[in-house]
Amino acid sequence: MSIEQAKAVVLVSGGLDSATTIAYVQSKHFLCYALSIDYGQRHISELNFARGLCTHFNVVEHKVIKVDLAALGGSALTDASQQIPTEKSAGIPSTYVPARNTIMLSIALGWAEVLGAQDVFIGANAVDYSGYPDCRPEYIDAYERVANLATKAGVEGSGFRIHAPLIDLKKADIIKVGYKLGVDFSQTVSCYQASPSGAACGICDSCRIRKEGFLEAEIDDPTVYV
Amino acid sequence: MSIEQAKAVVLVSGGLDSATTIAYVQSKHFLCYALSIDYGQRHISELNFARGLCTHFNVVEHKVIKVDLAALGGSALTDASQQIPTEKSAGIPSTYVPARNTIMLSIALGWAEVLGAQDVFIGANAVDYSGYPDCRPEYIDAYERVANLATKAGVEGSGFRIHAPLIDLKKADIIKVGYKLGVDFSQTVSCYQASPSGAACGICDSCRIRKEGFLEAEIDDPTVYV
Repeated sequence: MSIEQAKAVVLVSGGLDSATTIAYVQSKHFLCYALSIDYGQRHISELNFARGLCTHFNVVEHKVIKVDLAALGGSALTDASQQIPTEKSAGIPSTYVPARNTIMLSIALGWAEVLGAQDVFIGANAVDYSGYPDCRPEYIDAYERVANLATKAGVEGSGFRIHAPLIDLKKADIIKVGYKLGVDFSQTVSCYQASPSGAACGICDSCRIRKEGFLEAEIDDPTVYV
Repeated sequence: MSIEQAKAVVLVSGGLDSATTIAYVQSKHFLCYALSIDYGQRHISELNFARGLCTHFNVVEHKVIKVDLAALGGSALTDASQQIPTEKSAGIPSTYVPARNTIMLSIALGWAEVLGAQDVFIGANAVDYSGYPDCRPEYIDAYERVANLATKAGVEGSGFRIHAPLIDLKKADIIKVGYKLGVDFSQTVSCYQASPSGAACGICDSCRIRKEGFLEAEIDDPTVYV
């Protein structure tokens, strides 16, 4: 009798965190169902990178679900008329997208329930992050509680675990983990204003954190800059 | 000096619960921002009723945001090949849409944060409901905690309150409250398989609960049945 492999839903944006997360989930022998959210982000090329990652890692299925968060406004990431900041912000920066991770996790939760998956993975991380509140461990824990109260599988079934395996890692450590797991970082994009082909600006918050991560990890940075 | 009216985001489906919720929010003198989610529900006529309600109640703004939950499958409400049940189910019925309220509340939360609103209202109710887990008070409480951990306004600002004012009311009581507040129930639709014009089937779970509610409330049922 063969043991059935467990299914997992993994949120994939096309950045290096989600590439490392997918590689991690595969290394744990889950059947990997990848989910990307087209929320009206201006760096839409990340969805092409997400598709590439899913092909590379040979996931069982990759879904791209559209939610028009640009229609709600309120973020430099969805509003092309706002400048992307290039200096580290004192507080939470203008690239914060209101409720983004909560919306993405909720769609992932819905899909996980349909698939009969108990495990949902997100590449959120709280260390070298930009100060986003929905990247902190206490947020992930509270969300897991909601997931188990909100759903049929939570109430009648075996419930859900929300995993953020990178949450306590520095960017340099994420790069080291990904590197060991065979991630090709040239096939990822982190830039908030990447060109349509995925070339990075080199000056936004996300580029800065990524660049410093490669330096600190002492791993060659394969990023293509404009 | 005039006192500024507080803004509230209200989820509006076009059913009698959300009509009563909108009327309630207006009666509390909030500036009402209505949000409807086009999630691929087969009873899409409810969105026309939602638009009608928003016009009737003269809300400040009504947004309809599309999220393709039908692409995830798993519910008789988004899959026309599944039969809508006409008998009361023993457990949670097939009309349950995985994570629906969590997805809808999350988009409402994002919009509330953009607007600077502290209050989000949903017409969920736990008494004569169909057994949906995301209509229970403990779920709403857990979601409020997530809302305040997930967001900039939760962490740095004045935070959020998630209100489900109907949660403890029987359907008959919701109808009485709505009636007192001037809701025209002929302009609402509850049926899971309403015709394009909004005529109700009269036999699904939702029709059954609505019908019994009017009877018990001793208020004329203005529902148009096919």
